[in-house]
Amino acid sequence: MQPEERLDDLLIDGMKIIQHPGEFRFTLDAVLLAFFASVKQGGNAVDLGTGTGVIALLLASRGCAQVEGVEINPRLADMASRTVAGNDLAERVRIHHGDMRAVKGILPSGRWELVVCNPPYRSLGSGLASPNQDRARACHEVAATLEDVLQAARYLVKYRGRVALCQLPERAVDVLAAMRAVDIEPKRLRWVHPRLDRGPSLFLVEGIRGAKPGLEVLPPLVVYTPDGRYTDEILGYYRAQDAEGAANGQ
Amino acid sequence: MQPEERLDDLLIDGMKIIQHPGEFRFTLDAVLLAFFASVKQGGNAVDLGTGTGVIALLLASRGCAQVEGVEINPRLADMASRTVAGNDLAERVRIHHGDMRAVKGILPSGRWELVVCNPPYRSLGSGLASPNQDRARACHEVAATLEDVLQAARYLVKYRGRVALCQLPERAVDVLAAMRAVDIEPKRLRWVHPRLDRGPSLFLVEGIRGAKPGLEVLPPLVVYTPDGRYTDEILGYYRAQDAEGAANGQ
Repeated sequence: MQPEERLDDLLIDGMKIIQHPGEFRFTLDAVLLAFFASVKQGGNAVDLGTGTGVIALLLASRGCAQVEGVEINPRLADMASRTVAGNDLAERVRIHHGDMRAVKGILPSGRWELVVCNPPYRSLGSGLASPNQDRARACHEVAATLEDVLQAARYLVKYRGRVALCQLPERAVDVLAAMRAVDIEPKRLRWVHPRLDRGPSLFLVEGIRGAKPGLEVLPPLVVYTPDGRYTDEILGYYRAQDAEGAANGQ
Repeated sequence: MQPEERLDDLLIDGMKIIQHPGEFRFTLDAVLLAFFASVKQGGNAVDLGTGTGVIALLLASRGCAQVEGVEINPRLADMASRTVAGNDLAERVRIHHGDMRAVKGILPSGRWELVVCNPPYRSLGSGLASPNQDRARACHEVAATLEDVLQAARYLVKYRGRVALCQLPERAVDVLAAMRAVDIEPKRLRWVHPRLDRGPSLFLVEGIRGAKPGLEVLPPLVVYTPDGRYTDEILGYYRAQDAEGAANGQ
């Protein structure tokens, strides 16, 4: 552990995540995406822009035999590597420090069953970008646009493999059209609603490379009950014994 | 009234709809679309493939000053015309017997605030088409494909005017991409769920000609309560005094 770093309990499989108050920290969105993606037991996966490494760890926990995480921010990549080692997952999860726009120099093409990415949500020029370059890069499309993410995913994913993303609802048309444009046909879509009576704050989408059109839209994923606690579905992501802690503090 | 025709109560504004057991009859989808569309008080609208005329009538009831309905099936167009007259709306609603693929010969371009269409849901070759040609035309893309509908809508709608459609969720990517392709940018989207714990059976979408990207996704529209009655939102479409009848029979 380096100065100022802290060890946060993921509350899933006893995993602990190193985080730093000055860096982007993972959110519930990453957990939702990791549980939404179709994991093939014993398969492999890549997490583009892995940040703290939380999605890579969760994919391993869900049954992926081998997960590669790619992260452009050297400090985050270093923390994620130590997080992996600290959870005794170094044989199954590897963190690569590098730029997904240059993924050809990092990983070979057409080999992965699953590529996931919790990307920056805001295009440049929409909303105020953080003056902290590292935070700006995580939230705004400074280092990778939607098209960059999909180009990298398209390069990595095998034929009939899957690509799972999350994004803001306002960008849904962009995302669906851009996926189709690189022959990753959107096949599963789920809207994440903070509460049932509100519009979604996020959506999760999974496409299959080379698939025919035909979208399945799942029931809404509701995060909070009317009294502000996690719903049973969200609690179900956490181990039963940790559910109470997850509801109160995560 | 012709032989075999019957007069069905719409249970909204006291309107009655002539229907024939051998023809396509309107469904709740038409009612949902008519209430989803953004109606400008005193504005005008076109309903493409108006069928029984139910959407045209509802748009007039919601405040459109002038509504044009286009219907390719001569028997439906004739019934819809008599339905309009029977509801004393002949001055505000006109039914045109004609093919939306040749809409240039029926209505002028760029004049309408709102174009709506409850289109055939199935592309040719997907699912069994009815041997009855009239029913097949209403349910399968025999007489008009999604692209035909959007070409007609694009021709009719004024700059910054709106185009509202419904479709099956499995075709959502097709619809959103096809709307954008004719510069009708999807701006409002709503998923219709039979019940809250199930995926949607339908979606409603409205685009604006010439608008910038940026989609608003509304809260789910749930049709039935767990005990199988219409939800309050659906009942709200019907007049209070008719709500009970709507729940039981419509």
